[in-house]
Amino acid sequence: MLELAFRPDRESPEPIYRQLEAYLRELIAERRLPPEERMPASRELASALGLSRNTVNQAYQALAEDGLLRARVGQGTFVRAGAAAPGRGEAPPAGPRGFAWEGLLARRTRALALPRGLRGEPGPAARFDFRGGQVDAESLPVAALARAHAAALERSAELAAHRDPQGWPPLREAIARALLARGIRCGPDEVAVVNGAQQALDLLARVLVDPGDTVVMEQPGYFGAAVAFAAAEAHLVGVGVDAEGLRTEELARLLRARRAKLVFATPAVQSPTGVALSPARRRELLSLSDAYQVPLVEDDYDSELRYEAPPAPALKRDDEAGLVVYVGTFTKALFGGLRVGYVVAARPLLARLLLARWAADVQTDLVAQAALAELAASGALERHVRRVRRLYAERRAALLGALAAHMPAGVRFSPPAGGNAVWVALPPAADPEELHQLARAAGIAYTRGDAFFFDGSGAGHLSLSFAALAPSRIAEGIERLAALVRRASRGRNGA
Amino acid sequence: MLELAFRPDRESPEPIYRQLEAYLRELIAERRLPPEERMPASRELASALGLSRNTVNQAYQALAEDGLLRARVGQGTFVRAGAAAPGRGEAPPAGPRGFAWEGLLARRTRALALPRGLRGEPGPAARFDFRGGQVDAESLPVAALARAHAAALERSAELAAHRDPQGWPPLREAIARALLARGIRCGPDEVAVVNGAQQALDLLARVLVDPGDTVVMEQPGYFGAAVAFAAAEAHLVGVGVDAEGLRTEELARLLRARRAKLVFATPAVQSPTGVALSPARRRELLSLSDAYQVPLVEDDYDSELRYEAPPAPALKRDDEAGLVVYVGTFTKALFGGLRVGYVVAARPLLARLLLARWAADVQTDLVAQAALAELAASGALERHVRRVRRLYAERRAALLGALAAHMPAGVRFSPPAGGNAVWVALPPAADPEELHQLARAAGIAYTRGDAFFFDGSGAGHLSLSFAALAPSRIAEGIERLAALVRRASRGRNGA
Repeated sequence: MLELAFRPDRESPEPIYRQLEAYLRELIAERRLPPEERMPASRELASALGLSRNTVNQAYQALAEDGLLRARVGQGTFVRAGAAAPGRGEAPPAGPRGFAWEGLLARRTRALALPRGLRGEPGPAARFDFRGGQVDAESLPVAALARAHAAALERSAELAAHRDPQGWPPLREAIARALLARGIRCGPDEVAVVNGAQQALDLLARVLVDPGDTVVMEQPGYFGAAVAFAAAEAHLVGVGVDAEGLRTEELARLLRARRAKLVFATPAVQSPTGVALSPARRRELLSLSDAYQVPLVEDDYDSELRYEAPPAPALKRDDEAGLVVYVGTFTKALFGGLRVGYVVAARPLLARLLLARWAADVQTDLVAQAALAELAASGALERHVRRVRRLYAERRAALLGALAAHMPAGVRFSPPAGGNAVWVALPPAADPEELHQLARAAGIAYTRGDAFFFDGSGAGHLSLSFAALAPSRIAEGIERLAALVRRASRGRNGA
Repeated sequence: MLELAFRPDRESPEPIYRQLEAYLRELIAERRLPPEERMPASRELASALGLSRNTVNQAYQALAEDGLLRARVGQGTFVRAGAAAPGRGEAPPAGPRGFAWEGLLARRTRALALPRGLRGEPGPAARFDFRGGQVDAESLPVAALARAHAAALERSAELAAHRDPQGWPPLREAIARALLARGIRCGPDEVAVVNGAQQALDLLARVLVDPGDTVVMEQPGYFGAAVAFAAAEAHLVGVGVDAEGLRTEELARLLRARRAKLVFATPAVQSPTGVALSPARRRELLSLSDAYQVPLVEDDYDSELRYEAPPAPALKRDDEAGLVVYVGTFTKALFGGLRVGYVVAARPLLARLLLARWAADVQTDLVAQAALAELAASGALERHVRRVRRLYAERRAALLGALAAHMPAGVRFSPPAGGNAVWVALPPAADPEELHQLARAAGIAYTRGDAFFFDGSGAGHLSLSFAALAPSRIAEGIERLAALVRRASRGRNGA
């Protein structure tokens, strides 16, 4: 009998019986404990290894359940015949030469890349973190979320029987009700639940875009959309954004000149500039979409978070022809790790999106869907949105005030209509790369402007989110960043 | 002042204040309550409509928070100027002509379809439900899941800050530890968390398959794989399955004749036949993959559920060249609505999969990931797997016993090595369509055999899952089904 030389790691989070089990499992697999070997009695082994008898029994029990050990009445415990895996001797493995993956990749993977400004994320923990995609973690309704998840799990038998990729019916009903506030009247059967807005964009790309098709989007614009459409090998064409939002006269010229498969826009709160599309441009955008029969993808990602003026209703409200595909998400109101969003689309398109959805990943996590339905039904979601709207209004004011107070002349920014970020243009004299290095060294993080340009330009901008920092920290961080903007400008002025 | 004609729907799940809010919101949007209109005092309106004053106050408060109403000190509550959306008069909407979606669909959507045998799902509630993809809902560890979700949400600040599409580190560590039981030694950095096995297959298709590329899979084989690879416009080629599993000599002939992009297999428990790949074929499969440099996708979907013999280790264990892509899932041990699975792959491939993952939907729900990590760490997951293994062993025995006792001669089936379904071949005399109609009318549901054949054949088979029914119900359902098989055979014999 082999001497068992197991020594437990008492610092490990893994229970000791599991460590012992893994140790014995390996000895059996390697036939150092051969078939029909009699194992020591648990009391003996416990004593020899300085473990409790219960620990040894648990490990033996686990191995017995896996068919590696078996007890014979009155005789003891034995390694089971056939318990060893096909041994290395029996199955000479292929030599350890590496596999040439690069040569096997699909051509379309060449189009897979994050925009330049996002590469290198996640960065080191920053002392002043102005990066996008964050929320105020302390204000998350943890107790309400836990209650909602527990309530969802009470319905686990229903969840286990659910098979519809369109989504959990009570959640689709809650979404349809909530969309009334955006002016949209739709039935739950026109809503599909997806894993956040990103999956909606990806499914639209898969269903609508052939390689080489033109997709028009705002420039600067949301990088997630650019990544999804580029992954489908779309030809991306940008349309500029000014103080009234997407420049529709530029779009009109473009659509006259070339056929586009779809137009992607963020009308309520343009991402990243924060501009609300003007009423005249709203009408023009819908009318162009209808005239050229180009579907309009409306990403209403941040409609909950708006300040000052009441929000215009969704473009989808005025869409009588069914040409607007409306995309919304819960990730902004709660947090990005909660992967639930939704699409409202005309039925012929929705049917295809659901087929693509099944192929992609079947359905959205049902516990998450049912928990969100509970959170909406209890009113806790709405209370949370109201709370963070007030919180972010303060932080927005703090950021705008700090920028006005500290930034050197030539830095431009405007109050965003909604969302939780301010789009900042650096003065031409500032070197964006130098600023980025300086900021990183100083523990200040932000989203680089070139993340929002699919053509690699835009480095002269920053997107500063005010979501994750208290007003005093915002003020301190911006004062420091302003000093770095001055430093990064000196170099270029030939100091 | 417009007379407010609101009548609450007291049967509706929507709170009455929300109904009133929606009613007033619409009047404001339509300018029937024009800007600067003075609203009735809440006490007056409550009395006029027969509501509580608190209900009216809540509705007013919600509209005020949305910027549609505002209070003036000492004067009352007014509709806010600019609260109405761009009116219909101002924005003549496009005529209600429909949008021609069919003409806009991408060519690749033609390849999007569920196999014939799955269309029409979800069916009506069946009294005897033998369809696949189910679990025993009553044995779900609801309390442990609720505790795990609550514990996960305690870490919501960490979850909100997490940004890595590869997955929540504690879950990746738990997966790497659990894979030791399958013989796989990998670090958490070689594991990527995905939304169930289906997303793993979809991402592999996106990253490896160009339109027209050959993908080889077992036939009959797992339909989810066929759907994912077909969606990437793969040319699917089937290799037969016999009592030793995938027929490797057929694969060898195929690989000599044509270049394949990947081979998909379910070695531990072949889906749908339940056959375990024999030791000789295991070696042959690895050796062919290496010889032809064709990646092998090993879907180890049901390795937790095996009976009688201990399971062979994963093929990935013997993969020194890194040519095996290992796919696993938690959905089988728990339930299908819990969308968490994982991939273990060589680093160059993993990096591409993660880029494709970001484009697809960024990351898997973090609450679900953290809850599963908790469930694994607490031992509750393992206890649950042991419990359902015993439960399913009984049900498997009941199904096999009932089939042997009741089915007419010519019906063929074998005890599955694992999983929770038995693959049944009907006698040639039985008309599968007639059986399907009869079974549907009798409240008996199963998965049709043609679901597992991408070429439309296979209708002469059934897949019967024993997961969701108690042994006595299994016996009763099979006895009834056997009678229907006899009836469906009579017609063809020219009765």
